[in-house]
Amino acid sequence: MLIYSLLHLLGYDLPLDQLKNFRQLDSLCPGHPEVGHTPGVETTTGPLGQGFTNSVGMAIAEKMCQARLDDAILNHRVYTFCGDGDMMEGITSEAASLAGHLHLDNLIAFYDSNKITIEGATDLAFSENVALRFQAYGWETIEIDGHNHVEIAAAIKKAQAITGKPSLIICRTTIGKGAPTMAGTAKIHGSPLGDDEIATMKKDFGWPEEAFYIPENVKAVRENAIKKGTAIHSEWKTQFETWQKNNPEKAALWQDMQTKKVPADLAEQLCSVIDDKPLATRAQSGKIIQKLAELVPSVVGGSADLAPSNNTFIKNAGSIQADDFSGKNFHFGIREHAMGGIINGVSLYGAFAPFGGTFLVFSDYMRGSVRLSAIMKQQVVYVFTHDSIFVGEDGPTHQPVEHMAALSLIPNVTVIRPADGLETAAAWIYAIQNTTGPTVLALTRQKLAPVHQNETFDPKTVSRGGFVLSDTVNADVCLIASGSEVNAALEAKTLLEVTGTTVRIVSMPSLKLFRQQPLSYQQEVIPAGMKKVSVEAGVTDMWYAVIGTDGLAIGLDQFGASAPADTLAAKYGFTGPAIAERIRKWIK
Amino acid sequence: MLIYSLLHLLGYDLPLDQLKNFRQLDSLCPGHPEVGHTPGVETTTGPLGQGFTNSVGMAIAEKMCQARLDDAILNHRVYTFCGDGDMMEGITSEAASLAGHLHLDNLIAFYDSNKITIEGATDLAFSENVALRFQAYGWETIEIDGHNHVEIAAAIKKAQAITGKPSLIICRTTIGKGAPTMAGTAKIHGSPLGDDEIATMKKDFGWPEEAFYIPENVKAVRENAIKKGTAIHSEWKTQFETWQKNNPEKAALWQDMQTKKVPADLAEQLCSVIDDKPLATRAQSGKIIQKLAELVPSVVGGSADLAPSNNTFIKNAGSIQADDFSGKNFHFGIREHAMGGIINGVSLYGAFAPFGGTFLVFSDYMRGSVRLSAIMKQQVVYVFTHDSIFVGEDGPTHQPVEHMAALSLIPNVTVIRPADGLETAAAWIYAIQNTTGPTVLALTRQKLAPVHQNETFDPKTVSRGGFVLSDTVNADVCLIASGSEVNAALEAKTLLEVTGTTVRIVSMPSLKLFRQQPLSYQQEVIPAGMKKVSVEAGVTDMWYAVIGTDGLAIGLDQFGASAPADTLAAKYGFTGPAIAERIRKWIK
Repeated sequence: MLIYSLLHLLGYDLPLDQLKNFRQLDSLCPGHPEVGHTPGVETTTGPLGQGFTNSVGMAIAEKMCQARLDDAILNHRVYTFCGDGDMMEGITSEAASLAGHLHLDNLIAFYDSNKITIEGATDLAFSENVALRFQAYGWETIEIDGHNHVEIAAAIKKAQAITGKPSLIICRTTIGKGAPTMAGTAKIHGSPLGDDEIATMKKDFGWPEEAFYIPENVKAVRENAIKKGTAIHSEWKTQFETWQKNNPEKAALWQDMQTKKVPADLAEQLCSVIDDKPLATRAQSGKIIQKLAELVPSVVGGSADLAPSNNTFIKNAGSIQADDFSGKNFHFGIREHAMGGIINGVSLYGAFAPFGGTFLVFSDYMRGSVRLSAIMKQQVVYVFTHDSIFVGEDGPTHQPVEHMAALSLIPNVTVIRPADGLETAAAWIYAIQNTTGPTVLALTRQKLAPVHQNETFDPKTVSRGGFVLSDTVNADVCLIASGSEVNAALEAKTLLEVTGTTVRIVSMPSLKLFRQQPLSYQQEVIPAGMKKVSVEAGVTDMWYAVIGTDGLAIGLDQFGASAPADTLAAKYGFTGPAIAERIRKWIK
Repeated sequence: MLIYSLLHLLGYDLPLDQLKNFRQLDSLCPGHPEVGHTPGVETTTGPLGQGFTNSVGMAIAEKMCQARLDDAILNHRVYTFCGDGDMMEGITSEAASLAGHLHLDNLIAFYDSNKITIEGATDLAFSENVALRFQAYGWETIEIDGHNHVEIAAAIKKAQAITGKPSLIICRTTIGKGAPTMAGTAKIHGSPLGDDEIATMKKDFGWPEEAFYIPENVKAVRENAIKKGTAIHSEWKTQFETWQKNNPEKAALWQDMQTKKVPADLAEQLCSVIDDKPLATRAQSGKIIQKLAELVPSVVGGSADLAPSNNTFIKNAGSIQADDFSGKNFHFGIREHAMGGIINGVSLYGAFAPFGGTFLVFSDYMRGSVRLSAIMKQQVVYVFTHDSIFVGEDGPTHQPVEHMAALSLIPNVTVIRPADGLETAAAWIYAIQNTTGPTVLALTRQKLAPVHQNETFDPKTVSRGGFVLSDTVNADVCLIASGSEVNAALEAKTLLEVTGTTVRIVSMPSLKLFRQQPLSYQQEVIPAGMKKVSVEAGVTDMWYAVIGTDGLAIGLDQFGASAPADTLAAKYGFTGPAIAERIRKWIK
């Protein structure tokens, strides 16, 4: 309600009626702010620490745009509001450490230190020295009385003047200040004040009892703010137009970044860089990323300290560091959750289509941010490599079995697990143009032999989620596989056909995209009459939606083990012969 | 390999052959240490920050045991080893802040500060002052040359003498020290040294080329360590036996805590506290927790600052704080990820069956720890309330739709979503005796009318996952529902039967447990001949495994919205009439 009140008072298109309809269906004032829903709301927050982390991403994005364009045109600051909860969350620590490392002096955070959380006073659980902690991260800290307007204004001025560091303005406040009996208590965190408390408070303020009353002097502030803001904005627009005329190349670049423009022959170009020898899909992805970054100026990205493993480094493009933001490579450090929140912020800034990489299993560490990419429908790409037990020796803590499925379950998230280099190219082609939400690429650690040939491959088939890869007329069995299991399925087909069982192979890089296709297409690919088998080195739960309760799901509904990938394939039955044998027995 | 080498050299039952078989199938030396698999390994680590956080849990558990038993008997320290990666992870920040708050002077952490991560030098991403940060959390910090044995010994002595604070010993080290060309580089992080590098290094050390060579002086250290350790252990055992004799009540308590003993009439007692009026299952759970904590001394728990909402506070049992560990209530602060890692540590300590609470949607923030509860098969209970869009006004960021399913996908995790108070009691009865892994309880914010009566209710039915709740002979439709949708399903049954469609209602609090039952039981509950419909206010993907591709899954495969729960039920079709109408149309 604070942000809605301020937006209303500062002249955004948010009528008082909408505020009166707070937290009701279709109101412009939902329970937590939602970007794209309410004028003036710049990100969707609610889960603690995400907004702070988005603001770090936005501040980085501004500096990246300044380095690419002109800091006379882009010279705002990013302001963010935090509470005690934000300060306790790990994601905030991660993001604050990186913000200090990058000397983000365009970032000013307000910390509303009211020392009250839901369970009571913060001293129940939180007695650290926040100022000292932020100093350790390389921040400037300023402590003020958060109810003193003069101190607030002075602190902002001071923070704006600081160079080489982000600033944290620690505002000592009383929660619910003015509420006669509830101020300074946990009761006021999430509950309405009640009629009596409001009546007394208004009386104390010298206000009439009228609900949604705006005092005349506040109205005057509002009028002034609108006038001032409109004038500044119009002045900036004039400057910007002049800049565009004087800098046609940069202006065109800015345009292309905003629209995330891709060349007309993107598909052809990306498919052309694929290696036709056996190669891990993470390595194929690494080749694609080089070309993609060359062709699409909005593409930037990085990894949570796994770039050499994720193959995410953009060569010859420089690293983003405190003294130079012209590069295209982020070094997020071992901070997965912040990585997700930061690329959401970079994406929200509007000029970039960022990607972030880690091992698929560590998507667990950043699921909070991935869900917000999805709610906000941000065009971000998650490059999650080492996508199955075939990680091998690192063992069960590093081997995803449930993660592909678990990410697929999040609405608006598209998960694609390509079977070879060309499917990887197709996945990237889809991802970089997917505006319905984030795309997760699940890529192998181990080498995969190509299943497609460039001459006959149509990347559009991958965007349908699943398609017939190899067929035999009137096949008995429809064998559906994804990623590294497609090769094993093809081998199983050969073995089964020797003994008279004919097989259709369906490559299913994205079960979710497939299930979004028209039913007629789904039935064409997986006909009712065939016996249905799925094979994927992961949990089987999701497959019954296409194979039915009478289908056979070959998968892994348990944790893996530490051993070389080949040993694990034999142990858990993912070799061609093991799959063929399993199907033979099942048919009997 | 460091830990395996040390365990071998300190006389644990870990023969050299096992070390030679490092990272091979069935070796006692898997890629990352696994508790229960290797003698001397006390937790499963690998995902960064989890081990550090477990150690905070273990240190808390020791202090809790000291407060309950005797600190002359339990007076060890908890030592933990961390690297740069651990220091960057948010979970470590959360846990370190809480460890400082609780003055855990029995905790000593070594930070191997080698300034190298996978992408290169830490100064790519990590330039904060770690010592200052830990001082801000209330830790003692000691900086030493991590290669100097005298400094290490002195630092440990100093840390042991410190009271009122945990200690961080920051060891400045060179990664791969001794490797002639690779020392101090990122190359050495996860790759073998190679023959040449090893040969030169051994030469420099004056060692023979023999693989797995142990110098004589190290062997002598080993013999001494074994002798010394055996003597200390035997002395402690004698003391402990004397203590047991002199303190029979405490000794019995210790025994009951270790075995997590429950009374024979646990089920009866827990069912007796249920309110038979409409009440939220979180509130019913709150009543159960009171009784449970009274009956089972190993039960302790807390929430990530949502105790009043999660109904997790154990009344009259005190809070765990720096000056008093005799209580049963943790205050984790707004630190979900650390909460998971800490209760894992508390559970690993062996004397407690802890629970941790937050909103179901924020399970995303702690999934990394939940997965480790599952890998380690820890008997922990996650009390996740506000389990659907019926959270209401807080909106989509606070409304889980995919979380029940996503948690179910993790092997060894049992998710139970009870439909009323008695099913909630049954869920707790199951959870507190479930030794196969963690149990997740998904509980409502909103009130639910009872669907069972105490006289006829058998808690064992819930442990089978699903069962027939209400039947009509030769029913046309089998309508399967969980949690808050069971009441709506019962209403739909009444409405459908008015117009001639007969309905069997199956209550399915745990799809996962149900699918683990013998097929004969599953088919008895959901017979092949009936039309199958599932209804649950969440993603539908998992239901096809029981309803088949020709079943109707009524659910929500999109994010919710901010509005009162009743409005949302109408909007998304979860009222009795809406379900009945949907089924009527579908049958046509």
